[in-house]
Amino acid sequence: MSHGYVENKDELLKRLRRAEGQVRGIQRMVENDTYCIDILTQVSAVTKALEGVALALLDDHLTHCVAEATAQGGAVADEKIREASQAIARLVRS
Amino acid sequence: MSHGYVENKDELLKRLRRAEGQVRGIQRMVENDTYCIDILTQVSAVTKALEGVALALLDDHLTHCVAEATAQGGAVADEKIREASQAIARLVRS
Amino acid sequence: MSHGYVENKDELLKRLRRAEGQVRGIQRMVENDTYCIDILTQVSAVTKALEGVALALLDDHLTHCVAEATAQGGAVADEKIREASQAIARLVRS
Amino acid sequence: MSHGYVENKDELLKRLRRAEGQVRGIQRMVENDTYCIDILTQVSAVTKALEGVALALLDDHLTHCVAEATAQGGAVADEKIREASQAIARLVRS
Repeated sequence: MSHGYVENKDELLKRLRRAEGQVRGIQRMVENDTYCIDILTQVSAVTKALEGVALALLDDHLTHCVAEATAQGGAVADEKIREASQAIARLVRS
Repeated sequence: MSHGYVENKDELLKRLRRAEGQVRGIQRMVENDTYCIDILTQVSAVTKALEGVALALLDDHLTHCVAEATAQGGAVADEKIREASQAIARLVRS
Repeated sequence: MSHGYVENKDELLKRLRRAEGQVRGIQRMVENDTYCIDILTQVSAVTKALEGVALALLDDHLTHCVAEATAQGGAVADEKIREASQAIARLVRS
Repeated sequence: MSHGYVENKDELLKRLRRAEGQVRGIQRMVENDTYCIDILTQVSAVTKALEGVALALLDDHLTHCVAEATAQGGAVADEKIREASQAIARLVRS
């Protein structure tokens, strides 16, 4: 079964590779004794970028997986919505 | 049209009145020159409580409003999911 | 001992009373069966407002209480910074 | 000038390398069409890990850079606290 994000896979991978590069960049800043505040600025930036990836994934999930399940109705739909709500809670609390 | 949270209205109102009381309590702490850290602890507590209210509302919204709309399909469903995704993004970013 | 926020007390109380009013407003929205998304928008707004109050308090605390303690140095300073770090962590995680 | 985190450099680098590995792991999950919710769980985990790194950096910064500056007092101290407060605000809002 293909998932909601399949159409946006390349874009997601591009954003994740950029985030990976940002984390490596932060490592270099620490290795080079960069000033704490400048490092903190970059950590906030990569955290925000990853939140953006999560929100895009969630939007795809709601649009495809949850919509398809709710069209079927019943226990399948309930489970999909329960899962989505828990994922949203983890995202809000992280 | 009744909304998803109607069944949980009393519980939501109870939690919102508690949050209102917490905010009033924080006012008294400020008026009484309470130590900053103790006030900060209470602000984090009421912020977390309000997030809990938002997550409960969102769960009801997904379970009822979004599910009903996606069962219909088409533009109605797309709009409901777009709205839900934007509300989730505001919650994550607040 | 007066705390860092004493100079900004009126402003803090004004913001807290506004937040209290917002929470009461959300209660009315629930009582009046307002659409879920509109309620969620208001919850995100009051959460953000309370975060603003916390950040202002924290700034005052760092500027006065922590600065005074670190000027003394020793265990008093260590304790003040430990407390401030924990308060920041609670705020970030809430 | 050495910064507050210098003593914890190895630990910070270890946590950052782990976060880098987590982001690469998420890329593989997307490449392998893993279920959306499982990917979202990992994104929340790495966001939380990065927040932990930021909080550790901030604690070191307060303990060393801000404490040393406030011991000197004057404009140097004010600037250090202003910077720290802004970094905290970015962290809270990310």
